[in-house]
Amino acid sequence: MSWLSISPDSHFSIANIPFGIISTSSDATKRPAIAIGDYALDLKAFAGAGGFSAAPEIQKHASAFSAESLNAFAAAGRPFHRLVREYLQSIFSADTKNPQILKYNEQLKQAALLKRADVQSHLPLTIGDYTDFYAGKNHAYNVGVLFRGPANALQPNYTHLPVAYHGRASSVVVSGTPIRRPWGQILKDPKAEPKIPVLSPCEKLDLELEMGMFICRENQLGNPIPIDEAEEYVFGYVLMNDWSARDIQAWEYVPLGPFTAKNLGTTISAWVVLADALNGSKTAGIPNDNTLLPYLQEKTKENCLDIQLEVDLTTANGNKTTISKSNAKNLLWSWPQMISHHTITGCNLRPGDLLGSGTITGDTPGSEGSILEQTQGGKTAIQLQGGEERKFLQDGDTLTIRGWAGQQGALVGFGEVSGTIQPALPLF
Amino acid sequence: MSWLSISPDSHFSIANIPFGIISTSSDATKRPAIAIGDYALDLKAFAGAGGFSAAPEIQKHASAFSAESLNAFAAAGRPFHRLVREYLQSIFSADTKNPQILKYNEQLKQAALLKRADVQSHLPLTIGDYTDFYAGKNHAYNVGVLFRGPANALQPNYTHLPVAYHGRASSVVVSGTPIRRPWGQILKDPKAEPKIPVLSPCEKLDLELEMGMFICRENQLGNPIPIDEAEEYVFGYVLMNDWSARDIQAWEYVPLGPFTAKNLGTTISAWVVLADALNGSKTAGIPNDNTLLPYLQEKTKENCLDIQLEVDLTTANGNKTTISKSNAKNLLWSWPQMISHHTITGCNLRPGDLLGSGTITGDTPGSEGSILEQTQGGKTAIQLQGGEERKFLQDGDTLTIRGWAGQQGALVGFGEVSGTIQPALPLF
Repeated sequence: MSWLSISPDSHFSIANIPFGIISTSSDATKRPAIAIGDYALDLKAFAGAGGFSAAPEIQKHASAFSAESLNAFAAAGRPFHRLVREYLQSIFSADTKNPQILKYNEQLKQAALLKRADVQSHLPLTIGDYTDFYAGKNHAYNVGVLFRGPANALQPNYTHLPVAYHGRASSVVVSGTPIRRPWGQILKDPKAEPKIPVLSPCEKLDLELEMGMFICRENQLGNPIPIDEAEEYVFGYVLMNDWSARDIQAWEYVPLGPFTAKNLGTTISAWVVLADALNGSKTAGIPNDNTLLPYLQEKTKENCLDIQLEVDLTTANGNKTTISKSNAKNLLWSWPQMISHHTITGCNLRPGDLLGSGTITGDTPGSEGSILEQTQGGKTAIQLQGGEERKFLQDGDTLTIRGWAGQQGALVGFGEVSGTIQPALPLF
Repeated sequence: MSWLSISPDSHFSIANIPFGIISTSSDATKRPAIAIGDYALDLKAFAGAGGFSAAPEIQKHASAFSAESLNAFAAAGRPFHRLVREYLQSIFSADTKNPQILKYNEQLKQAALLKRADVQSHLPLTIGDYTDFYAGKNHAYNVGVLFRGPANALQPNYTHLPVAYHGRASSVVVSGTPIRRPWGQILKDPKAEPKIPVLSPCEKLDLELEMGMFICRENQLGNPIPIDEAEEYVFGYVLMNDWSARDIQAWEYVPLGPFTAKNLGTTISAWVVLADALNGSKTAGIPNDNTLLPYLQEKTKENCLDIQLEVDLTTANGNKTTISKSNAKNLLWSWPQMISHHTITGCNLRPGDLLGSGTITGDTPGSEGSILEQTQGGKTAIQLQGGEERKFLQDGDTLTIRGWAGQQGALVGFGEVSGTIQPALPLF
């Protein structure tokens, strides 16, 4: 329990303490903060006013709290994240041993404890590389059926290694950033010969419901990360929407994978939930019947995350419909497996790298992580509130993903990741 | 002609003036420099001692010359690069109007004009994103035949758009960095069922002979770059070796493209040859018979670069063989076309982004940009000096690519990009 009034429905309970980067109208400097209840605690102001004075071990990396991204904080390592999170939990605890630091310090509350509605969120980390995995087996199967038919839906490698591709780091944006409907090359009739594409605004704009994970530690080029050490490389998690232009993707993706169909924008939630905050939410993922190669074998099967996920579509008319409910455990591969595979040939990870899970689809109707799956490639429309319907996203649509673990009163939530589709620009 | 003694065979004639990042044994600070003849001019020392005093317009961005990467210099834009290059050419010119700045300034020569053999080169730019195109049509065809047979060698999209995939920025290293033979998943017998991979050191380690291009200007997310403006985004060029683990690649690359087979390391040459330095070396590339979509149509056909390329393989025994001779004009797509396509769906480029051409193979035997092609997938060995032979790279092999444009006495060269294969580590 906290001395701060926190709604039991808040994603940002005292059990959470997620980190982000904020600015305010009175101070445009980007700076670290945590989210708690309806507030953001400005860590630069807090640290500057001696907020960490009761924890000398935290002081040695205190410069991380005045950086413009969380990279330095992340790079300080998981033991440090744990220390800071537990210290901040103690500061906000109803029976805090240091009430003079914040609980009874009206001046510091005024300066550092900001209404979250009044702060602007920014990308939490400077992203070096962004890798998108394809670990959502149900999604991979559903999409494989649409692109290649049921016989070849999953490639032979799929259950032996976590398939992934390199994504575009520059186009990762924070929740709330508008997404422009792209132009691109589209093959209108895939069966016509010869195959002549047209340049057109995307007609099959889609979401991908994913989790993102930030790396906090580097390995040297040439040195794979053993799976038993992989957890130490996990800074924390965000919700992710990997916007996808399906018609552009279908034409361009052979043989080297998706490119312009994916680099139009990827949106992540603003608050990074620390790996430690989700220690109590581990669960088994989708079982893999293969005997895995040793570098992918884990000591536990409980290495996926039990996070409820919901997707809302709100039309320009204001009609809001929850179009999907899924769970982050719907993955064939765990995060440590993704890390070990990513580095097996020696790839170096760096603090600030972002890994995506791939689209997370459950095994029941209504749990699809993409519209492509839910509409069978645009064949059957999704019925929305107010009598509207969608086969793909329309201009003005707002897509919002929410996610949370834990129970009411102690939720470990992500808030939301949201983006609105803007109409295509006139081209040149 | 320069007052500095420059061999007519030097890649770094006064017609060139390429930029890089150096440090020295006496000063580990990374700092910008140019290469000229056998020397590097330390631009931090040069600028600090008033070297640009005869060019006040250059002073306004002079802080770029004390940065630890060329990103700030690149971001200053092509007109600025032109100004600096022409100014430095005038300083080194035999009939320089400002001989007191360097020609007759023994103290500054001592401080700033360093023997290139004595300086350490570093990555010239901090790379945000790295994209690898596949514009070498001869290579794409040859590899397509090996992977999919002649009927499907080139996919239907190949001549309509510059195929590309996102590469791994963190694993890009500067010439001279050793490359560790990777472990990875390999399907030893692709025809056996069921398909069960093994974990093994790569047995088909290969080079890819490429050109790299650095971006110097940013566009905003959602805003494609018109092809007529694309040249203004080109900072300059490097040689590139995109090391490739062919056996790992063959197993993993469907359906999302190469991943661990490519993120083991990509080596680039140390000196960035400015776009302006190659203005006189434009030529036509491989003709494309398609009517291209308007966003890919250029005003000129002479938009590829006429750069001679050579690949040497030196074995651990010291036997050195030139295994390939090619030319950078062997591309179906020009750099402006790559830029326009990269951004057509709105992807934002940033100064420091690296674009690779794809493997550059000519149309005659001996012009292959990869061993895979030259040995027909490992079927026929390449005969080396000293009676050695290779089907793929062996431990201790050093691969060196050289490239140059222009004529003796006025060469615009890249020096070399080089890397030596280290044996695989024992795994865990």
